[in-house]
Amino acid sequence: MVRHYLGGKPLTKFDEAFEKLMNEAKPVDRTETVTLTEAVNRVLAETVTAPFDVPPFNRASMDGYAVRARDIAEASPDNPVSLKIVGSIYAGELPSSPVTEGTCIQIATGAPLPEGADCVVPFEDTKRDNTTVQIFKAFPPKSNITEKGADVKQSTIVLEEGTLLTTAKVGVLAALGLDKLAVYAKPKIAILPTGNEVAKPGETLQLGQIYDINTYTIASLAKQHGCEPLPMEIVPDEPEALVRALEEALSVAECVVFSAGSAVGERDLLPKILKERGELLFHGLAVRPGRPTLAAVVGGKIVVNLPGFPTSCLMMAMVLLVPLWRKMARLPQWHPKTVKGILAHDVYSPEGLKQFLTLRLKKQDEEGSKGEKELVAESAYKESGTITSLSEADGFIVIPEDVTHLPAGSKVTVMLF
Amino acid sequence: MVRHYLGGKPLTKFDEAFEKLMNEAKPVDRTETVTLTEAVNRVLAETVTAPFDVPPFNRASMDGYAVRARDIAEASPDNPVSLKIVGSIYAGELPSSPVTEGTCIQIATGAPLPEGADCVVPFEDTKRDNTTVQIFKAFPPKSNITEKGADVKQSTIVLEEGTLLTTAKVGVLAALGLDKLAVYAKPKIAILPTGNEVAKPGETLQLGQIYDINTYTIASLAKQHGCEPLPMEIVPDEPEALVRALEEALSVAECVVFSAGSAVGERDLLPKILKERGELLFHGLAVRPGRPTLAAVVGGKIVVNLPGFPTSCLMMAMVLLVPLWRKMARLPQWHPKTVKGILAHDVYSPEGLKQFLTLRLKKQDEEGSKGEKELVAESAYKESGTITSLSEADGFIVIPEDVTHLPAGSKVTVMLF
Repeated sequence: MVRHYLGGKPLTKFDEAFEKLMNEAKPVDRTETVTLTEAVNRVLAETVTAPFDVPPFNRASMDGYAVRARDIAEASPDNPVSLKIVGSIYAGELPSSPVTEGTCIQIATGAPLPEGADCVVPFEDTKRDNTTVQIFKAFPPKSNITEKGADVKQSTIVLEEGTLLTTAKVGVLAALGLDKLAVYAKPKIAILPTGNEVAKPGETLQLGQIYDINTYTIASLAKQHGCEPLPMEIVPDEPEALVRALEEALSVAECVVFSAGSAVGERDLLPKILKERGELLFHGLAVRPGRPTLAAVVGGKIVVNLPGFPTSCLMMAMVLLVPLWRKMARLPQWHPKTVKGILAHDVYSPEGLKQFLTLRLKKQDEEGSKGEKELVAESAYKESGTITSLSEADGFIVIPEDVTHLPAGSKVTVMLF
Repeated sequence: MVRHYLGGKPLTKFDEAFEKLMNEAKPVDRTETVTLTEAVNRVLAETVTAPFDVPPFNRASMDGYAVRARDIAEASPDNPVSLKIVGSIYAGELPSSPVTEGTCIQIATGAPLPEGADCVVPFEDTKRDNTTVQIFKAFPPKSNITEKGADVKQSTIVLEEGTLLTTAKVGVLAALGLDKLAVYAKPKIAILPTGNEVAKPGETLQLGQIYDINTYTIASLAKQHGCEPLPMEIVPDEPEALVRALEEALSVAECVVFSAGSAVGERDLLPKILKERGELLFHGLAVRPGRPTLAAVVGGKIVVNLPGFPTSCLMMAMVLLVPLWRKMARLPQWHPKTVKGILAHDVYSPEGLKQFLTLRLKKQDEEGSKGEKELVAESAYKESGTITSLSEADGFIVIPEDVTHLPAGSKVTVMLF
């Protein structure tokens, strides 16, 4: 297969780079305490054991009468059993008297079952007559009640450390009365734009300058994947400034992402700085776009230098950094939704490079062979220097290194943004 | 088909209730200003037009030499063209002199193309010799440059009002230098637990009490779907307290969700209160679980009364309120990921009710007919009063009203949580 180079060195294959990066990823150890309303989508940092049974008592699961099952064992529409009503109990109340032979207590859903009673007869199977009630149907013991511990048994492990807290799992924690929880902190990702040509949005653009895009796309992505982005000031292309920014970033963050400065141009100073201070994992990927991507480990932390071109930068962040960040955040890996599409035109891809091609999807005007409207996919890619190659796309396809041509009409699996 | 009843009235079919609710949903009109780093996943409340071209100037897209294409039209490895280097320009700098016949300027990626030059020759096709450079390859005009406006043309509409801001779309806004944006506010959802038996997590449980689960599951869900949950205090089962809580909730929120109090028991006061103050959309759904669900419009706002049982409550919130909330938040509708599974056992469902059955998924030990391990789905449902019916499940299936039996081995489409 054709080999490609960056600055005279052969490029690293994407899958190899991915594996190296993932092997170096350290799941975050810092924890923090959050309240129950902040807990969803966080990762539990403690194993939770039930301190008591849920529910903590036998309770009615329907409105009706709490009875002794044996008292109504012969009840039928033709042969109703008459019981004396000796009280009533609502949810949140305590039974004032037990249910003894021939008696019953009116009970509301959620109320504790009175002593002596072992089932509930719903209203629809009864007819009340002042102080007595006629029961028209027999029920076995335990009918229409929720037994103590039916939901969660005391002392069982309810949620293991490392569990992602979904809405329902937040519900279980609430059921146990826990209002504060230890969760893993969100990994801090320092984001450093570099380059003398970059200006901060909101400031006035000088001649020859462009606005910083990458800080905002990387920060947005980090936020979406359970991390805390720390956008930092734009770093000028000067060795001292870059070293100072690197050191500051390493002191506050668990992962450092530079954008621009990795392309091996005359002023691309970062590769040298990182090489001197740490271990290079790779520099130069056999991908399109994103070739200049670099990753190193400095002081035990992963430092990534993404290309400055916005589409290269964001695409590499999506396919390389999202899995890295999710591992750091202890989140399960994320699989984008996919749809099938038909290529509207020929697509060519250089041998030896893995291509991530952004596509726009359109509903076909005519119905396909199966009578369904198929999705037509056309390239949204302009050039790696444009952000609209991504922002006007619906998703992307991955073209492997050994595929050089996808003819128009090919079926493709499009990963949706 | 069998009809089912609540308090003597026939139940409303789920699809009909869903449609009624969605018809009443009002997309939020409130807007707020956010910074670019807060913008991801928000909905743009203004139409953004490009105030200038992006990039704002012709720029080099590779490191090399800015030349006049006609000067090097005959260049080849055997017949290199020699040009005089009259300067160099880095990104962020302005060209100090133009490129005239027989000259060139060394240029870095991102730097503005000097006047006179119309293309860039990459370093790899050149050889420098002090103040001159030999060019070994001809390039047509516009080669290796990004033209002014190639990414975004001045005055074009870049993002329409109502656009969901993805990471790449945040990038486009950055490219335009916008640091603050008008987005639609998140709809405020008041959440009111009711019942004398309910205690707040963190407080001590009294005899006969259980902890409030529903506030935390509903709030978590609202948060996940672009809304701002407003959890309120537990409301006792008393008419005055319920009316006061309703009025307060309506004054601060755009949608009000009560949990418990809708089952038509003796103390189920809410249906009466809501009927007196607004228009009932439905009360009693032909579903399992979730039968007592009620929705009304009071003072132009949707008030929903979900069942108190945690699984009924959360399941109804997932299938009814998530679409409602997303419409209110102006977010695109959400489609859960699905997987195919094989039912491990028979499932029965009452005719006339739409059942939402929670399931656990397991990898089968043996390989299936296609040589792949199939997912086996088994019921995770205990009873609607338990939260573990949901928290221990991986997803759910929907069993239509006219299906009463799914035999073991049936293929089912499981919607994942």
